[in-house]
Amino acid sequence: MKITEDQIASFSYTDFHVSSLDLLRERFSKQNIDFEHVIHKIQAFQIAIPSAALGNGRASNKRSRTGGGPRNLNEKLEDIGLLQQLTCKTNSVSVYIPWDLPEDYMEVKDLAKELNLDFDTMNSTSSQDKNQKEYAKLGSLGNPNKTIREEAIAHNEDVINIGEKLGSKGLTVWMADGSNFPGQSNFRSSLNWTEESLREIYEFMPSDWGMMLEYKPYEPNCYHTVVPDWGTSSMLAKRLGSRAKVLVDLGNHLPKTNIEQIVATLMYQNLLAGFHFNDSKYGDDDLNPSSIKPYQLFLIFCELISGDQDEAQAWDNISWMIDASYNTQDPLVDLIQALESIAIAYAKALLVDRKKLHECQQNGEGSLAQEILQMAYLTDVRPLVCEARVMAGGAAEPLEAYRILMIRNKLVHERGRKSYNSIF
Amino acid sequence: MKITEDQIASFSYTDFHVSSLDLLRERFSKQNIDFEHVIHKIQAFQIAIPSAALGNGRASNKRSRTGGGPRNLNEKLEDIGLLQQLTCKTNSVSVYIPWDLPEDYMEVKDLAKELNLDFDTMNSTSSQDKNQKEYAKLGSLGNPNKTIREEAIAHNEDVINIGEKLGSKGLTVWMADGSNFPGQSNFRSSLNWTEESLREIYEFMPSDWGMMLEYKPYEPNCYHTVVPDWGTSSMLAKRLGSRAKVLVDLGNHLPKTNIEQIVATLMYQNLLAGFHFNDSKYGDDDLNPSSIKPYQLFLIFCELISGDQDEAQAWDNISWMIDASYNTQDPLVDLIQALESIAIAYAKALLVDRKKLHECQQNGEGSLAQEILQMAYLTDVRPLVCEARVMAGGAAEPLEAYRILMIRNKLVHERGRKSYNSIF
Amino acid sequence: MKITEDQIASFSYTDFHVSSLDLLRERFSKQNIDFEHVIHKIQAFQIAIPSAALGNGRASNKRSRTGGGPRNLNEKLEDIGLLQQLTCKTNSVSVYIPWDLPEDYMEVKDLAKELNLDFDTMNSTSSQDKNQKEYAKLGSLGNPNKTIREEAIAHNEDVINIGEKLGSKGLTVWMADGSNFPGQSNFRSSLNWTEESLREIYEFMPSDWGMMLEYKPYEPNCYHTVVPDWGTSSMLAKRLGSRAKVLVDLGNHLPKTNIEQIVATLMYQNLLAGFHFNDSKYGDDDLNPSSIKPYQLFLIFCELISGDQDEAQAWDNISWMIDASYNTQDPLVDLIQALESIAIAYAKALLVDRKKLHECQQNGEGSLAQEILQMAYLTDVRPLVCEARVMAGGAAEPLEAYRILMIRNKLVHERGRKSYNSIF
Amino acid sequence: MKITEDQIASFSYTDFHVSSLDLLRERFSKQNIDFEHVIHKIQAFQIAIPSAALGNGRASNKRSRTGGGPRNLNEKLEDIGLLQQLTCKTNSVSVYIPWDLPEDYMEVKDLAKELNLDFDTMNSTSSQDKNQKEYAKLGSLGNPNKTIREEAIAHNEDVINIGEKLGSKGLTVWMADGSNFPGQSNFRSSLNWTEESLREIYEFMPSDWGMMLEYKPYEPNCYHTVVPDWGTSSMLAKRLGSRAKVLVDLGNHLPKTNIEQIVATLMYQNLLAGFHFNDSKYGDDDLNPSSIKPYQLFLIFCELISGDQDEAQAWDNISWMIDASYNTQDPLVDLIQALESIAIAYAKALLVDRKKLHECQQNGEGSLAQEILQMAYLTDVRPLVCEARVMAGGAAEPLEAYRILMIRNKLVHERGRKSYNSIF
Repeated sequence: MKITEDQIASFSYTDFHVSSLDLLRERFSKQNIDFEHVIHKIQAFQIAIPSAALGNGRASNKRSRTGGGPRNLNEKLEDIGLLQQLTCKTNSVSVYIPWDLPEDYMEVKDLAKELNLDFDTMNSTSSQDKNQKEYAKLGSLGNPNKTIREEAIAHNEDVINIGEKLGSKGLTVWMADGSNFPGQSNFRSSLNWTEESLREIYEFMPSDWGMMLEYKPYEPNCYHTVVPDWGTSSMLAKRLGSRAKVLVDLGNHLPKTNIEQIVATLMYQNLLAGFHFNDSKYGDDDLNPSSIKPYQLFLIFCELISGDQDEAQAWDNISWMIDASYNTQDPLVDLIQALESIAIAYAKALLVDRKKLHECQQNGEGSLAQEILQMAYLTDVRPLVCEARVMAGGAAEPLEAYRILMIRNKLVHERGRKSYNSIF
Repeated sequence: MKITEDQIASFSYTDFHVSSLDLLRERFSKQNIDFEHVIHKIQAFQIAIPSAALGNGRASNKRSRTGGGPRNLNEKLEDIGLLQQLTCKTNSVSVYIPWDLPEDYMEVKDLAKELNLDFDTMNSTSSQDKNQKEYAKLGSLGNPNKTIREEAIAHNEDVINIGEKLGSKGLTVWMADGSNFPGQSNFRSSLNWTEESLREIYEFMPSDWGMMLEYKPYEPNCYHTVVPDWGTSSMLAKRLGSRAKVLVDLGNHLPKTNIEQIVATLMYQNLLAGFHFNDSKYGDDDLNPSSIKPYQLFLIFCELISGDQDEAQAWDNISWMIDASYNTQDPLVDLIQALESIAIAYAKALLVDRKKLHECQQNGEGSLAQEILQMAYLTDVRPLVCEARVMAGGAAEPLEAYRILMIRNKLVHERGRKSYNSIF
Repeated sequence: MKITEDQIASFSYTDFHVSSLDLLRERFSKQNIDFEHVIHKIQAFQIAIPSAALGNGRASNKRSRTGGGPRNLNEKLEDIGLLQQLTCKTNSVSVYIPWDLPEDYMEVKDLAKELNLDFDTMNSTSSQDKNQKEYAKLGSLGNPNKTIREEAIAHNEDVINIGEKLGSKGLTVWMADGSNFPGQSNFRSSLNWTEESLREIYEFMPSDWGMMLEYKPYEPNCYHTVVPDWGTSSMLAKRLGSRAKVLVDLGNHLPKTNIEQIVATLMYQNLLAGFHFNDSKYGDDDLNPSSIKPYQLFLIFCELISGDQDEAQAWDNISWMIDASYNTQDPLVDLIQALESIAIAYAKALLVDRKKLHECQQNGEGSLAQEILQMAYLTDVRPLVCEARVMAGGAAEPLEAYRILMIRNKLVHERGRKSYNSIF
Repeated sequence: MKITEDQIASFSYTDFHVSSLDLLRERFSKQNIDFEHVIHKIQAFQIAIPSAALGNGRASNKRSRTGGGPRNLNEKLEDIGLLQQLTCKTNSVSVYIPWDLPEDYMEVKDLAKELNLDFDTMNSTSSQDKNQKEYAKLGSLGNPNKTIREEAIAHNEDVINIGEKLGSKGLTVWMADGSNFPGQSNFRSSLNWTEESLREIYEFMPSDWGMMLEYKPYEPNCYHTVVPDWGTSSMLAKRLGSRAKVLVDLGNHLPKTNIEQIVATLMYQNLLAGFHFNDSKYGDDDLNPSSIKPYQLFLIFCELISGDQDEAQAWDNISWMIDASYNTQDPLVDLIQALESIAIAYAKALLVDRKKLHECQQNGEGSLAQEILQMAYLTDVRPLVCEARVMAGGAAEPLEAYRILMIRNKLVHERGRKSYNSIF
C-alpha cells in the first residue's frame, strides 16, 4: 500500500506547534544557535532500517502477532517506503541474507528506486550454515574445522555478490562465534582463524566497499565470544586495512561501560564504521532507543557531533541503523517511535554550546559542564524535529497519521493475518 | 551572610519565561493537566540538606578548595538558609553526629527558627568509635565484641538525645559493618547482633520518632555488608516495629538494579522511609542527581507519585534528602544544581497521563507506555519549576543569582579561605 | 536399558585410589576430622534431576543432537535410574508439567519404585497458557486479565493434583511474569495479583505440601520481573504462610551478588526452600555447576552446613535440584559431571575447621579466615566422593563406566537417533 | 632482622608431605606428566613485591596496625628479603616514587645485592603533583594544562633516572587521569595529550627499558578514565613502539569481563607487559589473590602457559607483581599467603593435559574440556609447591615459620609500634 501526499499533508501541524517553534527560534537567537542550521541538520540525518526488523521481533515468549507482516523483500521495501513517507528519517534498507534473498533483482531495484530507497550495508549470518541449519558448537569464520570456515567465507562472498547487484557498498559482519565452557575453544586459534577468514572476505570485497566489524561480549555464547569488545574488533580492522572499521551496537557492552567514550576513542582513530541503535537494561535486549537510557544516547550524539566538528572523523563514512526488535506489538509503530527518539537525541545534542563547553573543559569544571549539557538536554526539541519532518514532506505526527490512516488494518487486509516472516 | 528579599526579587524572570509558561499553560489545558496543581505540588516539595554536604566533598584525590566553608553547625545552617532563600526547595537540615555537635542548643534552635529551617532525621555513624577512631575490622552494631556493640548503641542513643533537643523526629542508621574476606565474619551472627542492637535503639527512641534503615551492597566492605539490600533492611524493619522503615540511597545498588521497582515494592508494604538523592555510573559515587541517569530519577518519581495517589503509602511519612558530595568545586553550586534537578524530575513525573497509562497497562502495550512517558519526560518543565520558586519568594535563576551576588566571595571574606571542615 | 550390578562392580577402584584415601584418612586423624562421618554425609546427600534436563538443552543455536533421548516420562525415569546406578547421587525426579504429563500413573509409579526414585517437587509453567501457547505480554499469575490469572491458577492446581497422584510433596513456582518497557506494567498491581493468585494455590495445596518460590531479576523480561529478588520472594512467602519458602537458583542474580550471604540470610529466617544448582558467567546461563565459579559453590555449601549445624534451619526441609541444561552434547554426561561437581563442593565444605573459623570470626582475622577455608578447599576430595559412591553401590568412575558400557550407543539403538523431546 | 639458614631448615617437611608427594609422583607418571619439570617450573617462577605493599594497606576505615612496619626503602628491602628467605618466590622489588625515594643509592644497591633482590619495574604516580599534593581535577599526563603535563612528564623522567641508578629496566605507568561528570573532560583531547606525554617519556627511556601501560575502567574517577580498557592501552602501546606493552591488573575490569581472554588476546599480539595479581568481588579491591575467584586465576595461568608454549609470546619479557594491599592485619602474612596462592594456581595450570585439551578443542566438546581442566584444578598441589620451595632453600610452611620465629614481634621491637609509613 502507499500513502498519498495529500494524506500526509492533511496531518499538518497546529497553531500550537507554530508558537512552540517561534519560542525556540527566539531562544536560539539569544543563545546564538543557528535555528535554520539545526533544522537542516535534523532533516539531513537518515537512518537505515534492517530488513529483519519488519517481521515480528525476537521476543520469543512474549510475542504478539499483529498480522499484515511483509511476506518478502519487496513488501519489506514497501514498509520502509511507508516509514519514509511518514517520517522522512529513513532512506535506505540494510538487507539480511539468507533471510531476504531478492527473487528478481531488477524488480527489487526498480521498487527501491520508486520508493527513493538505497541499499545500505549488507548483513551476512554467522549463526546458520549453508543449509540454514544452526552452526554446530564452535561457529563459522573462526571454526576449527576448515571446511566450515570455507563455507562461511563463501557465504559472505555470496552476500557481497548479492549486495553488489543491489548497489550496496558495505558488509556488516557480526561474528557470533564463541564457546560456552572454559577450555572448549582455543582463544588465540579461533581469533586467528577469524582474522584469516575476514582477510579473505576483505580481499574479495570490491574496492569501493567497506567492512563493518561488530563486537559483543556474550550471547549467544555463555563463556567466550571471539570478538567481544571494541579492542578486538579494532585490532582486526587495523590488520585488514583502512576500509574495515568498527560497528557499535549499543546493546553489546558489559555492565557500566562508558559507550560514549568508546565512540570518541574510535573516532580518534577514524575507526567508527557505524551504529546499531537500540536500548537495554540488562543485556542485548534490543529495546527501542531511549526507552531506558535516553541521556546516554544524548551523550553519544554529543561525541559524534564533536568528533565530526573537530575533524577527527567525518560523518559521511559512518552508517546508521536501527537494531531494535523487541516489539511485542506492531513493528511499524516501534520503528516510527525509534526514528523519532533518535532524532530527538540528535537534536538535543546539536543545541549544546560547544564553545562554552570547550572553555569549561580547560578547567574541568564538573558542575558547569553539567549545567551546559542540561541546558541543551532539557530543551523540548519536538517542535524542531516536527518542523524538519514537515518541511521534508513528512507527517507532523507520524504515529497519529499511522493510526488515523489505519495502515496496519490495510496491511492485514492486503497480506493476511498470518503473513509474517520472522527470522529470529 | 544573608540575602535580602530585594536582592532576590531583582532576579525576576524574563518575558521569555512568561511566554514559555503561557505556552505550557495552553498545552496543559488541552491535555487536561491542572496547571495550578502542578505548580503547587512542585512548590510544596522540600528536600533536606545533610549537614555533611556543606564542607568539601569526599572526592579525596580530586578535591579543589573553594574556601569560605562553614566552620560549625551554625554556619552550616546559614548556608542552608542561603540555599532556601535562593531555591525555596529546602526547609530542613539533617544533622550528622559526631561531626556537627551543637555547641549551644538554644542558639542553634533560634537560628534555625530565624531561617525557617526544621531538623530532619538525625544521622549516627557506624564508621567511627566513641573516640572518633575508625572501627577496627568488624564494625559497630554487629561487632562480635559486645563492648563495642554497646558503645555503638550508646552512640545512637546519644544522637537521639541530641535530636530530641533539636526537635528532630527520626534517626537514620547506616550500617557500614561487614567484612573483606570470605570466612572473616559470620553472616548470621553479625546480622543477629545488628538486629539486637537496633532493637535496643528502637526501644530507646521516643514514641513519635521513626527509624530509617539504609542498605548498601558493598563499600567500605569488599566482601560482605551486614545489610546489603532492601530485603535485609525490610526484614529488620518489620522485626523492629512499624516505625522502622527502609531508606533508599540511589547509589547503593548492584549493577542493573531496577530501583524504581524497589520503590514500588516498598510502598506496596508501606515500608519506604525516605530517599537519599544522588547519581552514579559505577558505585556509590554520590554524583549530582540526574548527572548520569536522569530518566531513572523520572521513573522513580513516577512510582512515588503513583504509590501516593493509589494510597499504597502517603508521602507525608517519607523523608527526602540529598546525599551527593562529589563536588570538586563549590558545594553550594552543587546543591543548587541538585535541588533544581530533583525538582525537574518531579515536575516531569507530575505530567504523566496516569489515566491513559493505567489503561495501557491493562493491555501491556509497551510502545504506548513509552509514548505516554515520553510525552511527559520530553516536556521542558524548567518554566514550571522557576514559576513555583519565584511564587514562593525564590530567585528566578538561583545559580545566576548566586554568581551575581558573589556569595562565595563574601563567604570566603567572612570565614576565610581555609575554613572548611569536611567530615568525609 | 539397565546396568547390572556386576557391570557397576567391574569398575572398582584402583590401588591408587586406596592409597590416596589412606593418606586422607591419616591427614584427617591429625586434623580431628571424622573420616567416616564425612563419607557418610557425602553419601547421604541426594540431588533431584528435573525431567526437563534429559532432553537436549536450551542452547538453541549451539545444539548438537546425540540421539537416544527419552521419548516420554517413563524413559526419563529410566535415564535417572541409570544416573542413580552410576553415581548414587540422585534418588528423585522433579517433574515439569505440561511437558511430562504421566500417561499411566500406576505404570509411572511402579517404574519409579522399581528404580528407587521418589517424586521431588512438581514444576508448573508460567510461560505457556492452557493451550500450550506462549503467554501474551504480561504473563500468568500476575496478568491484569483476571481470566488469564484464573487459568494460570487452575494450571497450578492441576499440577498439584498430578503431583499428589505421583506422591510429590511440593510445588515449585517460577514466575516469569514481567514487562519489557517502563510503564508497560504496574509494579504494585502485578505484585498484588501475583500474591492473590499464589494465595489461592497455597490454600489449594494439601496440608503436607510446601511451596517453593523462585526469583529472577531479568530474562525473559527485559525491564521488570514481578519477583526479581529474594526480598520480594520472601515477602510473598511470609504473607502466604510457613509452608512457603524461597528457592535459590544460582543463575538468577544481578552481577556481583553475594549469593552465599543470601543463603545465610534465608536460613536465618528458616526461609530456604531449596536450590537449583548451575553456574554462569553472564546471565542465567544454566552451565554445569562449578564450571565457572567453583569457589562460590564451596562458600555456599559452607553456609548451608553452618546454618544446619547452628540449627538456624535444618536441611531436611530443603530441596536440592540440578538446573543446568546448556549441554551442547550428551545430557547424561552433563548430569554425571554436575552431580560429581556438587558432591565435590559439598565434601570440601565438610572439611572446614568450623571451630577454628568460629574463633577467627570473633576477631575478624581476614587472612586467617582465608587460610582456614583454603585448607579445606585445596584438599583433593575426589577419593572421598569416590569412596562414598562405591560404598553405596555406584561406579568408581561414573563417566568412564558410562563410556565403556557405551550407554549412549545403546540408548540410540533403543530409542532412535531423532528421539529427543526437548521442552525449552 | 634476618633469618638464618638453620632456622629455615628447622621447618623441614614431614613424613606426611613425603607420602603425599610420592603419591603425586606416582599419579603423574601414569598421566605422563613430567614431575621434575613441574617442580622446576614452580621454583623458577618469581614475583615482584611492590615497595608500597609493605606498609599497612589502603583499607582506610578498617585498618588495624600491627606495628613494626618498614620506615624507609632499606627496611622494605629487608622485609622482602625475609619473604624471599621464607618463600623463595620473590626475587625483586618494584619501587614506587616519590614514596620510596632511595636516600643512598650505593647503600640500597648493596643491600639489595646482599639480599639477592633485583629492581623490577619502577612506578611513577599520576595522583600527586610535584609538591606531593593531589592533582586538581583533570590529572597529570592528560591534563589540559600544558604546565601540569610537563611536570608530570618530568616526574616520570625523574623516576626513570632513579630506576636507572638502581638497575631497573622498566617503567609502569598507571594513568589515574579522568573526570567525574559528563562534559567535564574532552575524551579525545585528554587521550591525545596522554599519548603525547607518553611519547616524550617513551623517547626518554633508555633503549633497553620497557614501558608497561596499565588500564582501569573507573576509580578514582566516577565517570571517565583516559585509559579505561586494554583496547585503549594497546592502541597507545602500538603507537609508542614495540617496547610499550599492556599491564593487566586483575581488579581493573568491568563486571563479568573475561580476563583470561584478554590475556590470550594480548599474547596473540605479543603485547602483554605484565601482571598485577590480586582479587576482588566488586571493584579494584586489591584483596589477596584467590580469595574470591581462584578458578579465574587458574584459567589465566592456563592462557599464560598456553601462550608461552605456542610461542605467541615468551614469558621472559613479562613482569609479575603482587598488587594486593587490603590487609587489615599483618602485611607480611598477606604477602606470604599471596605468593603461595599464586604458586598454587600456576602449579595447577601446569598439570593441564594440553594435548587432550587441544584435541577436545578441535571438536568443541564443552563437558570434556570441563573434565580435563577439573582433572588438573582439583589436584592438591600444595606438596609440589612445598617441595619446590624447600629444594630452593625456603621454609616448608612459611606462615608457620613466620609465626614460630615471631618475626612480627621482632620487627616491632626493632622498629617500634608506630613505625609504619603507608602511602595509600
